[in-house]
Amino acid sequence: MSKFPSYIQEVDGELWLTEDERDNMKLSYRVKDIIFAEQSPFQHVMILDTYDFGRTLVLDGVVQTTSVDGYIYNEMISHIPMTLHPNPKTVLIIGGGDCGVAKEVTKYDQVEHIDMVEIDKFVVDVSLKYLPEVSGNLSDERVNFIYTDGVKFVQELENKYDVIIIDSSDPVGPAEQLFSEEFYQNLHKALKPDGVMVCQSQSPAFHMDVTKQTYQRINNLFPITSIYTAVVPTYPGGLWSFTLGSKKYEPKNLGEKWQDKSTKYVNQGIVESCFVLPEFMKNNLK
Amino acid sequence: MSKFPSYIQEVDGELWLTEDERDNMKLSYRVKDIIFAEQSPFQHVMILDTYDFGRTLVLDGVVQTTSVDGYIYNEMISHIPMTLHPNPKTVLIIGGGDCGVAKEVTKYDQVEHIDMVEIDKFVVDVSLKYLPEVSGNLSDERVNFIYTDGVKFVQELENKYDVIIIDSSDPVGPAEQLFSEEFYQNLHKALKPDGVMVCQSQSPAFHMDVTKQTYQRINNLFPITSIYTAVVPTYPGGLWSFTLGSKKYEPKNLGEKWQDKSTKYVNQGIVESCFVLPEFMKNNLK
Repeated sequence: MSKFPSYIQEVDGELWLTEDERDNMKLSYRVKDIIFAEQSPFQHVMILDTYDFGRTLVLDGVVQTTSVDGYIYNEMISHIPMTLHPNPKTVLIIGGGDCGVAKEVTKYDQVEHIDMVEIDKFVVDVSLKYLPEVSGNLSDERVNFIYTDGVKFVQELENKYDVIIIDSSDPVGPAEQLFSEEFYQNLHKALKPDGVMVCQSQSPAFHMDVTKQTYQRINNLFPITSIYTAVVPTYPGGLWSFTLGSKKYEPKNLGEKWQDKSTKYVNQGIVESCFVLPEFMKNNLK
Repeated sequence: MSKFPSYIQEVDGELWLTEDERDNMKLSYRVKDIIFAEQSPFQHVMILDTYDFGRTLVLDGVVQTTSVDGYIYNEMISHIPMTLHPNPKTVLIIGGGDCGVAKEVTKYDQVEHIDMVEIDKFVVDVSLKYLPEVSGNLSDERVNFIYTDGVKFVQELENKYDVIIIDSSDPVGPAEQLFSEEFYQNLHKALKPDGVMVCQSQSPAFHMDVTKQTYQRINNLFPITSIYTAVVPTYPGGLWSFTLGSKKYEPKNLGEKWQDKSTKYVNQGIVESCFVLPEFMKNNLK
């Protein structure tokens, strides 16, 4: 039996994590140290110290967020809907166990209440303990941690939130239902009449089918639907998409509404230009 | 002795190319077929058929361009300077052996003459033969192929080109001088009084030091210097930077100047917004 977790390989005295979620392209990270590795009731959870990306959260062998570039995803999925809504007081986060999204949302003083619904308490605990660069040692009385299945949580809600952020993992296995039509219908119902939702909608370079399907499903429910992108170096292909559904507010001239939140990726220009899509994406969405 | 080139590994009956140019992060591509593999006088040249990216040009084991995403880099390094200059008649391309940049530049009717200076004729020949998705079977009387060292070629030139495009490989080994101060001085001299140059300036995610140094060197010579980015899935980190030096024209409101060139990545919105940099890049350039 190996002395390392099954997702880690020892090669010529070096430790490597190789993601094998994709059939035909693999990303490998050289590992300095295994900080934590244990099976939760839902998945295999690791915190690795990697050479290029520092401390890294790995679930079932797949990199979720890193100390070095995790802020890009967390800032982009948070600040775009929070800037679009003129007065977000109640916010729901589904997933987001690394606490990075909650950390960004607490930067808004007008926010009164944040429900953070994560199925795996384990992920929250290890992120708070071992991943302060991402979780920011989140400690804010407005954040209400609820450890349950997000799909079930939203079934009976009505007219409750200003902003909903779906920070899910990939649409395989447990997270699959977080991309379903029924789930989006429940989110629509859970939002107030001027509410805004956003979800990550995968890599347009590798999964334009998922990006397109997500866009179409949200577009069937919301009068205003838009896709925006960001570049996340540790996600395969780099380019990542987010889909926004809005009941009232149009994402126009967002740059004018942007207020500095001590961010490292997002700024006025990014907020303004992130909805510009390359030609191949525009063509694929037609 | 293996029956495969040294850069290809056979793992459980599957063929894989693993780039090993980086110490702590690796990208691996599953290979369907080895179309071509030979040592040129300058480097080891392969054309692989890969599962995710189709036919792929590999030099010394490093992916240079692919049939699936090669257009992104080639369009971005070509159309931004070509749109910025109001009347580009003479163009110099240094490097660019896959012919993709020359293909994009020939889309401009006003161009009268293109000097394409590539050190390795081998790369041009195999790209034209085996990589039509990138090279576009380039056959245009305005393109003048010159097989020599680009660094030497520009030493004695003066006041000759409207646009110069440096499509180099990474700044290690033979391409190192293509990032030197002396080289940029010669480019400045080779440009007409309203000339524009652009070079690829590496991944800001992994080599912000190179991006910054390139920016500073060009900024020392040109009154107008700007960085723009694009997302190339097969380049590590996805995010890629280009640095533009301009003697006269400012890259403002480029969207208004953009004219459709049957591109797959570039469009009016991209031309307009590609100069918007994430906050970490802006901070690093200070």
